[in-house]
Amino acid sequence: MEGSHTIRIPASQMEAEFIRILLKHGFREDKARLCASIYTANSVDGVISHGVNRFARFVNYIVKGLIDANAEPELDYSAGAVEQWNGNSGPGTLNSIKCTERAMELARNSGIGCVALRNTNHWMRGGTYGWQAAKAGFVFIGWTNTIGLMPAWGATDNKLGNNPLVFAVPYGDEAIVLDMAMSQYSFGRMESKAMEHSMLDFAGGYNSSNELTCDPAEILDSKRPLPIGYWKGAGLSLLLDILSAILSGGLSTSEISKKQDETGVSQVFIAIDTHKLGNFPSIQNTISGIIADYKNSVPVVGNTTIRYPGERILQIRTANLQNGILVNRTIWNEILNL
Amino acid sequence: MEGSHTIRIPASQMEAEFIRILLKHGFREDKARLCASIYTANSVDGVISHGVNRFARFVNYIVKGLIDANAEPELDYSAGAVEQWNGNSGPGTLNSIKCTERAMELARNSGIGCVALRNTNHWMRGGTYGWQAAKAGFVFIGWTNTIGLMPAWGATDNKLGNNPLVFAVPYGDEAIVLDMAMSQYSFGRMESKAMEHSMLDFAGGYNSSNELTCDPAEILDSKRPLPIGYWKGAGLSLLLDILSAILSGGLSTSEISKKQDETGVSQVFIAIDTHKLGNFPSIQNTISGIIADYKNSVPVVGNTTIRYPGERILQIRTANLQNGILVNRTIWNEILNL
Repeated sequence: MEGSHTIRIPASQMEAEFIRILLKHGFREDKARLCASIYTANSVDGVISHGVNRFARFVNYIVKGLIDANAEPELDYSAGAVEQWNGNSGPGTLNSIKCTERAMELARNSGIGCVALRNTNHWMRGGTYGWQAAKAGFVFIGWTNTIGLMPAWGATDNKLGNNPLVFAVPYGDEAIVLDMAMSQYSFGRMESKAMEHSMLDFAGGYNSSNELTCDPAEILDSKRPLPIGYWKGAGLSLLLDILSAILSGGLSTSEISKKQDETGVSQVFIAIDTHKLGNFPSIQNTISGIIADYKNSVPVVGNTTIRYPGERILQIRTANLQNGILVNRTIWNEILNL
Repeated sequence: MEGSHTIRIPASQMEAEFIRILLKHGFREDKARLCASIYTANSVDGVISHGVNRFARFVNYIVKGLIDANAEPELDYSAGAVEQWNGNSGPGTLNSIKCTERAMELARNSGIGCVALRNTNHWMRGGTYGWQAAKAGFVFIGWTNTIGLMPAWGATDNKLGNNPLVFAVPYGDEAIVLDMAMSQYSFGRMESKAMEHSMLDFAGGYNSSNELTCDPAEILDSKRPLPIGYWKGAGLSLLLDILSAILSGGLSTSEISKKQDETGVSQVFIAIDTHKLGNFPSIQNTISGIIADYKNSVPVVGNTTIRYPGERILQIRTANLQNGILVNRTIWNEILNL
């Protein structure tokens, strides 16, 4: 709801503001338009932490010269259906869109394609690339490494990234998209919960006395967020980082963490072209069958809807396109002044 | 330690028994030898739940005609670097070894290869195939679906498999291998803890009053094990199942769960040939750097060793090869009588 602290901004108005700002900061028009559309779409889909709320920081990185607005990613090395690309410090979103597209091209040729990208920047919402590929009929598996912000299992200092992992499949005209970081809760989520003085539903980390806690303030203080599944998520985070670094030839979490700002991250984009599979005609039936069975689960509480990953986004998207995107007034005023 | 309930069996003796039994049950000699070596290696590596402890059940599936001892997997459909194979109800271990090898062959050609396998059986330890590929210089990503044994998030009935996921990378002459099911604890682990009347270190599921519990007996009773990371692991399990089914053209968890026994599962094997990458000469340095930084973590307790996934297996392997594998006497006597 709109209130004294919030305002509803129509998507088209948000996108126009973003384009204005990007042009002012030297983006070529086509790049400004595409980049603005991604930050807007993330906001429309309810992921404002990686949409409108992150836009000023992105522009600040451009101003500081950490991101090169018009840099084009280029091929470092081709190994058939695997390619290694250099992001040339360009905007993370644009580099990721391009590499997802390239992984799809490789998959059109070989059934599967993998692009590993080094020297790029934060891709914002990983789900963006899952939706991109899956809506075009591709299976997508992708991940990024990040700066260290989570301890190894049994440790207190932040050697691991939260390294979001994305799995996506085509589903009718839409997609099923899982976009999950390796930490149980994001720092953004914990910060907003701490500001509201409310507790997390489940333990989200350790406090400074080495006890699991649901208090986000304690976790922000200890800097010990919990990996999903304890040792399991910590292990998966490590493997995703190793793969990001060795497949792309780029920086690892350990190397990124030595910098003042999170830049030069490494990413992997794998696409599989479902059109090329022998069972292509029956794939949508198979998925529908799985989802029907899944949604037929017996809920713990009354008639709760059991949702598949990405399902809620479709409703949020529709509502936000209709009503506008709910934005913090301070953040929106900051945008208007950029 | 050996005791009244346990006995140490040398690996060579265990393998010889397995070969004897498999030959007796109609395995061709080469298949008997390979299959016995996998069950033995899993036991040597400390994963006896998918080694010696599961062997009698495997033989029982052969006897019941659920597994065809000498069936060969065959190519269903080729889409370049992606292939779809039919496991023809053969032994899961042998089918998985073959498909991992085939994914590596495809990757030697195209940089990356993907084999999706339908109509196969339990692959026992997923890590087997991670070690196989990584020790030959390949990155490995693979997973299997399973019978339903975990609820969707917010539900009480078992619509999801625990769908183990494996990531592996070459590391010197050995490998870093993550082999993780989507449930926080395996049923095997919870059963042995329940028999000891001991608690899990962390909540492993819900009890029948819908409260999180560390009591394995309560979870075995409620049949509500916890996915890793709550909703996240549940979502990942669903996506892994969808991918297993659509990439292979095989059965989903929902369809497997309709059978009396867990047969006809679907699996995915992805290999990337590191020799073909532009940065091949520096890959081992990169991994060593990441591991050195990771192991340099500040431990919560004193001088605890921070371990990477698969690290402990090397020590267990050495010890078991030296001292023999600790086996429950009842289980070993059952093997001797097969």
